[in-house]
Amino acid sequence: MAPKLVLTYFDIPGAAEPIRWALEQSGQEWEDKRLTGEEFGVVKPSLPNGQLPVLEVDGYTLPQSMTILRYVGKLGGLHPSDDLEAAKCDAVLDAAVDFYINVRPAYTEKDQAKQLEMFGDLAVNYIPKWLANVEKQLAATEGIYFAEKMSVADIMITTRLKTLRDGNYNGVPTTIFDSSYPNLNALYDSIVGEPKIAAFIAKHDK
Amino acid sequence: MAPKLVLTYFDIPGAAEPIRWALEQSGQEWEDKRLTGEEFGVVKPSLPNGQLPVLEVDGYTLPQSMTILRYVGKLGGLHPSDDLEAAKCDAVLDAAVDFYINVRPAYTEKDQAKQLEMFGDLAVNYIPKWLANVEKQLAATEGIYFAEKMSVADIMITTRLKTLRDGNYNGVPTTIFDSSYPNLNALYDSIVGEPKIAAFIAKHDK
Repeated sequence: MAPKLVLTYFDIPGAAEPIRWALEQSGQEWEDKRLTGEEFGVVKPSLPNGQLPVLEVDGYTLPQSMTILRYVGKLGGLHPSDDLEAAKCDAVLDAAVDFYINVRPAYTEKDQAKQLEMFGDLAVNYIPKWLANVEKQLAATEGIYFAEKMSVADIMITTRLKTLRDGNYNGVPTTIFDSSYPNLNALYDSIVGEPKIAAFIAKHDK
Repeated sequence: MAPKLVLTYFDIPGAAEPIRWALEQSGQEWEDKRLTGEEFGVVKPSLPNGQLPVLEVDGYTLPQSMTILRYVGKLGGLHPSDDLEAAKCDAVLDAAVDFYINVRPAYTEKDQAKQLEMFGDLAVNYIPKWLANVEKQLAATEGIYFAEKMSVADIMITTRLKTLRDGNYNGVPTTIFDSSYPNLNALYDSIVGEPKIAAFIAKHDK
């Protein structure tokens, strides 16, 4: 029997969004629990790493967004069962983590002028290189997905690309993910155009 | 038949060390290829993300250290096959990534005075909290390992702890991983005391 799944995060896309899309896409039953900052303060001490998201799996509390994404991917047929194919998918997830590792210092910088400068630097010296690397990996596969069929890797990268296009980073032009990346554009269009994902985005995007 | 494995990295522990320990511990045949900075410069353009380590698997080049660790863990029986148990193990690997995400800005800071200040701040405001969180997760399991039996999660966390104890971070006292973490100490002693891992450390530690 499918486990009872409750995903808890804030009422923003953030680290939970690829997990939500994967759950929707694979048609799993799940509860989309969204906390206010105040509610998070109350439960924080009881969380495994004091962080969200967490996924309750039949009452067991699983932390860490990439772990949760991979787990729901396996449950929903969006993560390969063959070890090497799974690793190829994981390597793409790790490339998405690399992006976060590099962008986070700017994202968490409190001084607005300094932040703008840091994002400006990322827009010139990091993000185009990252996009080109991911484009190259995708070009090396057959078809529009990173693995032979759609996986959580495709969903994860698409949420990163959406963040760029939505202008979440002050100082990074929203045009940075442009037509110079034909394979990534095809992937993006395919994922956000999946009917279940499109419906979820339409319902929650603000 | 077991695939032919070649692990390429620099001649330091770094991101390759947990992979090396996992390969040794599980008794797999593998080649330990170590490049100089100059040699890296030559192969860099041909690498999937321009980064090391990479693992050649029967000629296929797999990037990303956490992906490689999980993959060799699966090959060697050091990563659970049950989906939820695998996720519990992955969550610990992600906690080790969290550590890296937080420490990296200081590690890559070029200004020595600024770096000392950043590590000093991490030593007070981050590392003890991280250690306490991981100690708590380990205390919640039965026995000395994060999962029911030894996994790559135990190896990964132990390499992080060793980095602290070896004094790799200027401004972080080597005593920061002290006896206030009895479960982590028991894990550490168990892993570095495994005969194959102990022999590998003795051979390579400088």
